[in-house]
Amino acid sequence: MIAEIIAVGTELLLGQIPNTNAQIISNALQEIGIDVYYHTCVGDNQERLMDIFKTGFTRSDIIILTGGLGPTRDDLTKETVASYLNLSLKVDKYSLGKIKSFFARRGKPITENNYKQALIPEGACTIENKKGTAPGVLLNNDGKVIVMLPGPPTEMEPMLKEVVIPYLSQRCSSTIISRVLKFYGIGESALEEELKDLISQQTNPTIAPLAKMGEVTIRLTAKAKDRMTAQNIIKPVEDEITRRVGDFLYGFDNDTVEETVAKLLFKLNKTIAIAESCTGGLMAHKLTNIPGISQYFERGVVSYSNRSKQELLKVKADTIKEYGAVSEQTAKEMARGIRLTSDTDIGVSITGIAGPDGGTPEKPVGLVYIGYSDSDSEYAEQYFFNGERIDIKERSVNSAFHLVRRMIKSLGD
Amino acid sequence: MIAEIIAVGTELLLGQIPNTNAQIISNALQEIGIDVYYHTCVGDNQERLMDIFKTGFTRSDIIILTGGLGPTRDDLTKETVASYLNLSLKVDKYSLGKIKSFFARRGKPITENNYKQALIPEGACTIENKKGTAPGVLLNNDGKVIVMLPGPPTEMEPMLKEVVIPYLSQRCSSTIISRVLKFYGIGESALEEELKDLISQQTNPTIAPLAKMGEVTIRLTAKAKDRMTAQNIIKPVEDEITRRVGDFLYGFDNDTVEETVAKLLFKLNKTIAIAESCTGGLMAHKLTNIPGISQYFERGVVSYSNRSKQELLKVKADTIKEYGAVSEQTAKEMARGIRLTSDTDIGVSITGIAGPDGGTPEKPVGLVYIGYSDSDSEYAEQYFFNGERIDIKERSVNSAFHLVRRMIKSLGD
Repeated sequence: MIAEIIAVGTELLLGQIPNTNAQIISNALQEIGIDVYYHTCVGDNQERLMDIFKTGFTRSDIIILTGGLGPTRDDLTKETVASYLNLSLKVDKYSLGKIKSFFARRGKPITENNYKQALIPEGACTIENKKGTAPGVLLNNDGKVIVMLPGPPTEMEPMLKEVVIPYLSQRCSSTIISRVLKFYGIGESALEEELKDLISQQTNPTIAPLAKMGEVTIRLTAKAKDRMTAQNIIKPVEDEITRRVGDFLYGFDNDTVEETVAKLLFKLNKTIAIAESCTGGLMAHKLTNIPGISQYFERGVVSYSNRSKQELLKVKADTIKEYGAVSEQTAKEMARGIRLTSDTDIGVSITGIAGPDGGTPEKPVGLVYIGYSDSDSEYAEQYFFNGERIDIKERSVNSAFHLVRRMIKSLGD
Repeated sequence: MIAEIIAVGTELLLGQIPNTNAQIISNALQEIGIDVYYHTCVGDNQERLMDIFKTGFTRSDIIILTGGLGPTRDDLTKETVASYLNLSLKVDKYSLGKIKSFFARRGKPITENNYKQALIPEGACTIENKKGTAPGVLLNNDGKVIVMLPGPPTEMEPMLKEVVIPYLSQRCSSTIISRVLKFYGIGESALEEELKDLISQQTNPTIAPLAKMGEVTIRLTAKAKDRMTAQNIIKPVEDEITRRVGDFLYGFDNDTVEETVAKLLFKLNKTIAIAESCTGGLMAHKLTNIPGISQYFERGVVSYSNRSKQELLKVKADTIKEYGAVSEQTAKEMARGIRLTSDTDIGVSITGIAGPDGGTPEKPVGLVYIGYSDSDSEYAEQYFFNGERIDIKERSVNSAFHLVRRMIKSLGD
């Protein structure tokens, strides 16, 4: 079955917002084995929308429209689809009741144009919108499935995942599932070399490597009649890959390295403190995005000035004088200092030159030292990163989390 | 002139990446007065791409394609466009030289498929790609403009802004410019009430308010024969708005509140230090994204534990015991403590409950105190924020920057 996605809204064509709905819907359809062949955005214009819908209805089996379901005159999606299919619009009482009580709760009278939100094409089913007033629409016509969902992603996404995807997957004869393996510390070509026999023989599952910002991922995708069969097709290939290059594997699917580090801290009951210079608090921010981390993360210090490195981290004035604030020696003393002053199991530090200014021929922009300290070991690694100030901050923090991950794992051994 | 944007790449249809290029290009075209009527995404499939291009070439004056310019067999954009227009492809020597030297620098032999990147349709101009190997293409045919740009946004965007937009703006008979005024501390309806006579009379410039995450913006858009005339149309309306509600105005266009704060620090030569609890370093991270801030930002402390609040910020144990770590009193002592220990002009603090756990009926998730301290004044404000952990962090930091902005301004008076 071929699907296409039509986003309706002039704000998309003005570039005011990105069309994230198309990505979310495509991803969800791909997982149930439905191929998406086209995305289209069109403005709040009935004639052009009609044209686009007509093309979609002619070439695809499933047409998912987003946006244009609201109360204003600009909102034309249901009207246009109904008109193309020669269907009348009728009031959906349940939706109207919801809209009325929405206004009643706010103590406001319901305005005339809000009735419009409760109109749906005859013969269609509504999809309840728990986060807003405009219901979605599900319609079968001439063997095709037409779905209309509201534009705001927070409203659209639950309706997609709770109703549309389960409905469409019933109609599919096969399931596609993907498993992403995430690697760090091995290049794309080295990884492909290790797996080249598997890659050259691939059919089901397919094996697709992808390199991105210092990381390499492998996506295994299997197609089968049901989810469990697909999982059983992936399993032996995943096991074989793990056997060969598992040392570099740090996570699966949407795992982030900070989540992996947090899970290891939870599991091994280790506490951590972070001393950052050039990354300015980004590492602490990322780690503290994880719920429950407050039991394991004791403190962070953003020691931007030399004085703060000395006062808060006990870095020696002589070390900074002799080697500089951006040096292996300072990184080590920062890591040791934050660990000892905070009395944690692990101390980690980042010091470098994020630019755009401040670089010298000896210490260019992008030079970063990452320090690590626990009761058994202490060292610092040197890195050179490319990019803008924010890229250097991101890459430094990413590398620091990977360093901690490697080191904590050995603490657990 | 009507434009449309065609993105080529199966990865878009699989939902692996969002089509941010369409947004960036639409935004840039809108600013020079070119209307975009359609966005389309199509996969790496010659037949479907040909169909989509044909439709675009028929209905639009400007067709901008992104993606599909790389070296692999999947990359078909130039081939398909040339084939539809009956043009042959020829080698662009300059581009080929660049590709050869790219491989030479890496000490690798150039592979056969990389020659493909230097092929362009006869009669076309190349657009230099400074961030990658695939050049862009600019082509006039039958009164239409066809532009082909690479898919990676970091390559696409400079080519768009340095070559394509200047080229297209020459061809336009009018210019549209926008000016965004950013407000904080006033609601959308109150702002509209203050400006309702201006809004009801609007024609050129148009006046469009928009509310978003605790902020309200007003976009003034003027259309005129040239840039200066358009600016002169906007100026008196901007001045009148500033006269009425300028107290709430904090920035323009893409200004962020942290940039506004940094500019004030630079201008008034004031130093700052930041003590964060629930925001985990996000405020320090945002401030340190600004180049040159190291002269004014002395240090940050992420005092996640009570112990670190006492040790690093001199918060009294009794204060935490009596009022709790999340309280007005603790916020004040944190702000004072970070200012005095770091010897800066300004100290700012955030303490709160970011969730999802840790809330109580008295102190629910979303309760946040923001503290401020300078040599003349010291106080803390209470906030309640909705949303997920990350939303609460973002909103807290945003409010803290606005509090600092208001206070620094009075320091300068």
